[in-house]
Amino acid sequence: MRLSSHLVKRSEIDRQRCSVARTLSVIGDAWTLLVLREAFMRTRRFDDFQRLTGAPRPILADRLRRLMEHEILERRPYGNHPDRYEYRLTEKGIDLYPTIVSLLAWGDRHMPDPDGPPVELVHKACGHVMQPEIACPECGEWLTARDVEVIAAPDRAAVPDR
Amino acid sequence: MRLSSHLVKRSEIDRQRCSVARTLSVIGDAWTLLVLREAFMRTRRFDDFQRLTGAPRPILADRLRRLMEHEILERRPYGNHPDRYEYRLTEKGIDLYPTIVSLLAWGDRHMPDPDGPPVELVHKACGHVMQPEIACPECGEWLTARDVEVIAAPDRAAVPDR
Repeated sequence: MRLSSHLVKRSEIDRQRCSVARTLSVIGDAWTLLVLREAFMRTRRFDDFQRLTGAPRPILADRLRRLMEHEILERRPYGNHPDRYEYRLTEKGIDLYPTIVSLLAWGDRHMPDPDGPPVELVHKACGHVMQPEIACPECGEWLTARDVEVIAAPDRAAVPDR
Repeated sequence: MRLSSHLVKRSEIDRQRCSVARTLSVIGDAWTLLVLREAFMRTRRFDDFQRLTGAPRPILADRLRRLMEHEILERRPYGNHPDRYEYRLTEKGIDLYPTIVSLLAWGDRHMPDPDGPPVELVHKACGHVMQPEIACPECGEWLTARDVEVIAAPDRAAVPDR
């Protein structure tokens, strides 16, 4: 395994004038996204995050700290002797749900588990097992990449001088 | 900057029985997601990917190679003397669109650019500037995390022995 190829210089990425890049500067690493997956699965405690993501403890502590700095998770006390905390999604964090479910849906479709989907989503209102899809909030039609035109600001392409 | 905190041991992540984890083992780093952003912006050539993502060339070459290995991008010749190639999304790659637009939407909402959104999306069919939202494909209703129940396979929690 070539560790060097997995280094991400966030300091460069977060200076790009792009909302995807800015988002990735906060959540754009795999451990962070796994922590978020667990948060959406109602995982709240450090040891459970550790067991369920498999993240080494220092990495997990770092990712939880970053997510709190960016107000995606918040920490609430649930015990003492010693003090203990739960980590919960904020409203800003809950807004990441489309990102997490779209990662899930793509994996189920293109990298299926031979034993079947490890997680199923049920829409409470209609009771169906489903995978969310994207639609246009203006007209309600389902969307694919081909249905959407991208209009870029003129200076979007500029990568800052380094 | 603490580089060590950005290391991701993919070898661990991709052994978890989880579709999110499997997806992240392929696209779960920030440079890869920036390359995909550009691919959805119709970027096709190495030098353009390099300029628009700001990725160092060896990192970009590595990410393009991985995306081809996983049949998310495919390479097509467009010239010779020397041989030149374009990189294009496959159908499997195009299916990552909900992931990329959800990263974009979250960034526009929660980390807005002071100069306004650097990119706007227009739904060709209805002509509106919009940001895709998720809905239930069974009943058509809009979804948030609170509308969805997660049902996990019993052994989902198991992280493989290492």
